[in-house]
Formats: sequence, structure tokens, C-alpha cells
Amino acid sequence: MRCEVVAVGTELLLGQVVDTNSAWLGDRLALAGIDCQFQTRVGDNQERIARVVDIALGRNDAVLVCGGLGPTPDDVTREALASVLGVRLVPDEAMADRIRGIFDARGREMAPSNLRQAERPAGATFIHQERGTAPGLICPVGGRGDGRDWGEKVVYAIPGVPVELKEMVERAVVGDLQRRAGSPAVILSRMVRTWGLGESALAERVASRVDVQENPTIAFLASGIEGLKVRITAKAADEDEARRMLDAEEAELRSLLGDVVFGVDDQSMEKVVADLLVERDLTLGVAESLTGGLVASRLAETEGASQWFRGSVVSYDSKVKYDLLDVPEGPVVSEEAAVAMAVGACRRLEADVGLGVTGVAGPSEQEGKPVGTVFMAVAYGESIEAREQHSPGDRQHVREFATISLLDLLRKRILAD
Amino acid sequence: MRCEVVAVGTELLLGQVVDTNSAWLGDRLALAGIDCQFQTRVGDNQERIARVVDIALGRNDAVLVCGGLGPTPDDVTREALASVLGVRLVPDEAMADRIRGIFDARGREMAPSNLRQAERPAGATFIHQERGTAPGLICPVGGRGDGRDWGEKVVYAIPGVPVELKEMVERAVVGDLQRRAGSPAVILSRMVRTWGLGESALAERVASRVDVQENPTIAFLASGIEGLKVRITAKAADEDEARRMLDAEEAELRSLLGDVVFGVDDQSMEKVVADLLVERDLTLGVAESLTGGLVASRLAETEGASQWFRGSVVSYDSKVKYDLLDVPEGPVVSEEAAVAMAVGACRRLEADVGLGVTGVAGPSEQEGKPVGTVFMAVAYGESIEAREQHSPGDRQHVREFATISLLDLLRKRILAD
Repeated sequence: MRCEVVAVGTELLLGQVVDTNSAWLGDRLALAGIDCQFQTRVGDNQERIARVVDIALGRNDAVLVCGGLGPTPDDVTREALASVLGVRLVPDEAMADRIRGIFDARGREMAPSNLRQAERPAGATFIHQERGTAPGLICPVGGRGDGRDWGEKVVYAIPGVPVELKEMVERAVVGDLQRRAGSPAVILSRMVRTWGLGESALAERVASRVDVQENPTIAFLASGIEGLKVRITAKAADEDEARRMLDAEEAELRSLLGDVVFGVDDQSMEKVVADLLVERDLTLGVAESLTGGLVASRLAETEGASQWFRGSVVSYDSKVKYDLLDVPEGPVVSEEAAVAMAVGACRRLEADVGLGVTGVAGPSEQEGKPVGTVFMAVAYGESIEAREQHSPGDRQHVREFATISLLDLLRKRILAD
Repeated sequence: MRCEVVAVGTELLLGQVVDTNSAWLGDRLALAGIDCQFQTRVGDNQERIARVVDIALGRNDAVLVCGGLGPTPDDVTREALASVLGVRLVPDEAMADRIRGIFDARGREMAPSNLRQAERPAGATFIHQERGTAPGLICPVGGRGDGRDWGEKVVYAIPGVPVELKEMVERAVVGDLQRRAGSPAVILSRMVRTWGLGESALAERVASRVDVQENPTIAFLASGIEGLKVRITAKAADEDEARRMLDAEEAELRSLLGDVVFGVDDQSMEKVVADLLVERDLTLGVAESLTGGLVASRLAETEGASQWFRGSVVSYDSKVKYDLLDVPEGPVVSEEAAVAMAVGACRRLEADVGLGVTGVAGPSEQEGKPVGTVFMAVAYGESIEAREQHSPGDRQHVREFATISLLDLLRKRILAD
């Protein structure tokens, strides 16, 4: 069963509203085992809506049209559907009464234009409205008289207001689609999050998993500075079976990737680090220079940070490094400075573990070191681990790259204990 | 000139990633005077990508395909375009060298699969990559030999990573589309950025400007935590004239809004504050608690911050406030604590101006104060200004709201001098 989503609204094309409905519908349909291979956005134009629904019916079993069901003149989804289906719009007295009743109940006067919402393409049935004033439509698609026969296909029309859309899709569309599909399948997915390998190196490491199977499938998603994600998608008869398949595949990937994997789904690097610190009852202090507070702000984002996060000395100026962190006077873009900062953070902030990071964010070099040079250190008891790194990109990229690299260094340091 | 946007990626169809690229592109194309009547999303499937590009070429002058240009096997946009255009993919030695150079510069090994990114449909030219490793493509569409002639149409292919996409579209696509359109009109816009008024209050203050004119037009854009923007869009015969219209309208809006306006276009609050500090030759130090480093990291984002930014003491733990900032022992969610922090920041970091901010980010109340309570202070010479604020929303919202509010307090304090 394939279903295309058609989102109607000029505001979507102009970028004034981000089309979150389509994303929600894509996720919901996938979970219901319905394939969604195409999504289309079109403006409030009757002829163009009709064209995209026509194309969508040609390549799918079902089409879900969202938006354009309001009472104003630019709401023309009803007219467009009637024209695609080759039928007339017919007024429905029972629906007209129902809409009048909604206005009465709210103590508001109904504009005559609202009665447009009581019209339906001949042969279509309404989906009753529970929230707004617009009913939805289920339009069975039969032969059209022009030689093309769409057999058992169907078009749904649903209001574009997100709360109305979600309620109506859950109540009247998902089940109807699954009945028509006949084979209820469940599709679940999981994101395995990694740090430290490039996209192609990662792909090569897990190539054996990508090649061997069609279900579950494996896909790679870059998510900017947050590292690469490997998505596992499993299709099964029920949710338990799908979850077992995800668990098994996650275990395979972890065995191939080792500690390159730092978490799954919404486990961000800082959440993972926070969990490790809580688990081992450790407190953390930071001394940061080029990152200028980014390391601290990411750590402080995690709920319950006050349990283990002592604070950070953002020593942007060299003199602050010397005075507050006892960094030896001299070059501050150096491994020695990063180590002194990590140790200084432990002492000044009375923390069990200290992080230090210094470097050149740009736009110009510093102390003869090129833009992108970063020194970082983790101090944990008597042991100190330091690393030099060179990262590409602009000022912001260098700072964010240094932040997540430092958190990853901390993660591996704690895990190694 | 009509241009369709085709977004490629199974993750978009599954709703795992919301397609913000299409919204951004819709807005950008509209500003450039290019009509975007359709937007299509399709998965990582060569045959289906080819089908939607084929349909898009049939109903538009240009097609902008985003995504599917990575090095992994599921990136098949290049292959799909070659098949639509009826040409072969040819390897490009110069581009292969360029990609090798990018990996060399990062000190990383290049997987052989990255060379796929050096292939282009015969007849296409590359758009050089400035950020990622994927180049873009400009594919002129000629006759196809099957009787259909697409004349002067064009297909662009652009990476789907938002920063790469935006940079490449601004640099190489918008101008190329406008040249092809040959349209004599110039459309320019300017964002007037405000802080401190709600949307309806702002709309009322500038209602007189919205009602009187069709060109330039005025629109309101909420941009989340960064305040409300008023966008002026002017259409004129040439750039000078358009710019004069923008200048005149900006002056009108500023006279209506006063110091609610903090900047225009890319003048973020921190850039405005930075300019004021440089202008008056002042240094700044910060002491922050609930914001956990956000204030510092925003300030450090501005180029040249080392000239005036001394640093920040992120005193997340109360004891750090007492020990490092000499906050009097006792409640730390109070005006007294914020003031002591601002003064402590001046002294500890040897700064002319000090900021202090403390409060309750949540999820639970603290010292009997509800979530969203924020105290902030600016210390400047002998004068101290403090403010209490209550902000709605979750943990992250409270922290970001406190950060920009504090920077705005600093801005007004310096301006008042």
C-alpha cells in the first residue's frame, strides 16, 4: 500500500510556514506499514492541486491531501478533487446543520461562506470534524470515464491545522488505509549515533551489514557537527518482532564499530557523558578558551546537571588563564596550556575531573599556529590525557568541532577506567 | 521564471528529518522574484528521483534538487540526473584532485567511494564546494533525442546539508536563475530586528506603515528566541533605487519603534553589543549560573571578541559562586546574588563592565522560586542596574531567553551613557 502526501498552501511554498505536517504524516504512515515514496507541496491553486493529485493517483494506491479545506476563497481543495474525480460538488444538508451547530455552540455567528465546507465531491463521504469546523473527506476513486480505471484507489482530504490533522488521521485515516492494505505490518527505526569516523570510512566498516539484507535496512545520515548516524529500519508483523530485529542489528553494528558508537536515538554526546559521570559519582569542572562557554553550555543543557557539573572558567583572555587557572606565562595555544587548564579547573572548581581546551578559532592565526589548531586535555585524578587536533571550517565550526571532540575524549577516558 | 524544489532523502519521507531546506529555499526564491509553484520530496531511489525531476522539468523552467550527493551507495542523485538528461556520468580529474586535497588538508584518509563525488553528468559543470566535500552541479537541459525539447531549461543539484546548501545557493544558484530570468526588476529585502515587544504590540506600533503601501511591503517574522523581525521588501528598477526605498522605510520603522530595534539583517544582539563595547573601548566580564556558558559562548562567537571579551565564570555550583565570585553565602536565586556576580566578574576578570545572571531553569523550582525566575545585573563603574524577569517555556527556552535579555540590558545600559 503506497500513499502520497500532498500538502496544499501557498504559505508552505513561500517558506512562511515550515511543513511539519508532512514530516509527521511520513513518520505515522511508516509506523503503520504504509509506504510513502513521494510528498508534494502545491499552492492554493485549483488547477495545480488537481494536477498533482492526478499524478499522485497514477503512482500510488492512496493520496492524502492536507489543507485547503477552509471557508475562504483561496481554499480550493474540494473543487480540485471534484475536478480530478470527474464529479460535481454537492451540498450536504446534514453537514450544513452540523457546522451551524458548531457556531451556535460557540456563540458565534456563521458567515455564509462556511457552508462551502458542507460540500463534498459526489460519491465522497465526510470524516466528521471534532476540533475545527472543516470536515475531512474520503473519496473513493472509480473509473473516470476517460478510459483510465483507478480501481480501488482512494483520496483523503484533511484540514491543514496540525491538531485537527493529527486527530483526524489517527481516528479515520490510518485504520482505513490498513484495512485497504490487508497486511498490517509495523515499521520501526533506530538511530545509532557515532563520532570519529568520516562518512565513507563508516560506510566501509558496516558494508557487510548493508549488503547482506533487505530487512532491516541500513542508511547513513549526516547530522552536521553532531556526527554521523546509522539508521536501522525494520519491518515486521508486530512491534515486538520489529524491536527484536532492531536490537539484533544494533548489536551487530556495535560489534563492527566499537566505541565509535556513543549512543542511540536522542542520546546526545552530553547526555551520554552526564550518565557516565552520575554512574561513577564524579563531578566535572571545565576551563575553556576558544570554545568560549560552548562546552559548559552543552553540559548545563542536560537535566540534573547540578548534580555533577561544578562550572567552567571561560578564560578567553590570556591573563585570565594565568591568574585564575595558574597556566604558566607563555604561549596559550599549546598542549602545556590545555593540561594546565584541565588541572586548574579541577583545583579551582573542586571537581573530580577537569577539562581544558585552547586553540585558534580564527579568523587569523595565533602564536604562529594556524586556524583550526586545537589542544585539549582531560585531568582525572593523577592521570592526564591530552590531544592535538586540526579541524576545518570557519570560526563557529572550529568551536563546535572542538566541543564535541573534547566531550568524546572525556567519554572514552571514563569508559577506559 | 519558475523553479521547482526537489528534496531527496528517505529520512524526509519518514519524518525523521523535517525538511527545513525547502522552506528556506521557497523564501529565498520568492525574494529573488522566482516563482516556486511545486515542491516535491522523494526518497533515495534513482528511478523515482529521475521520475520526479522529469515531471518537474515538464512544468518549470528550472529544477533545484537538494540532497543525495554524498559518497555512500544510497546517494544516487548524480545517477538519476544523468538518466533524466540522457547522458553518461563522467569522472572529472580536476575535481578528484580537489576532493583529495580537502581530505589531505584535514589530515584524514579519503575512502575510494568519495571519488563518486567527482563524477558529473556529461555537459554539466560543477559548483565548487566551500564547506563539505560534495560539489554542486549545474546541468543545462537540451533536446533529449526523444522528440521532447526542453530548450534552455536547467537542473541544479545541491548538497542537502543546510549550511552547504545555503552557501552554495547564495553563491552560485540565485544569481544564475536571475540571469536566466532576464527580469529587470531587483527585489531586495531587509530585516529590522527587535527585542522586547510581543507580536501584536509590534504590529500595532507599525500598522500605519503596513496599511499605506504596496511597495515596499512589510511582513512580520517570528524567529523564535531571537525576537521578532520586520521584513521590508522593495522592488525597483535597479539596486540603488531598491536600497534607497529600504533605507527610507527602515528610518520610518525606527522612528515608530525606538530602541526596540536593536539591529538589521545579520546584526545579532551580540554583534551589536560587541560594536558598542569596541566603540567605547570597554572590556567585559561575565558571571553566569542558569545560562551555564550560553552568554559567554554567544559573545565569543563574534569576530574580534578577544579585543574586549575577558571571559566568564560559569558558577553552576553555589560554592563556586561563593568562592570565586564572593557572592555572600545564602540564597543564590536573588537580585543580591546577581549583583554580587556582576561585581565579582568585574573584579575577578579585570573588566570594565560585568554581567551577572542567576535563576531557575527547571525542571523544578529552587529556593522556593518557580521555574523561569531570572535575576540579572550589569555593573559598570560605580553604577549597577538589576532586573527580575519571569520567562515561560522549558529549560532551554528559559536559558536562551535569559541570555538575550541580559545582552539587551547591557545594550541599553551602554546606550544610556
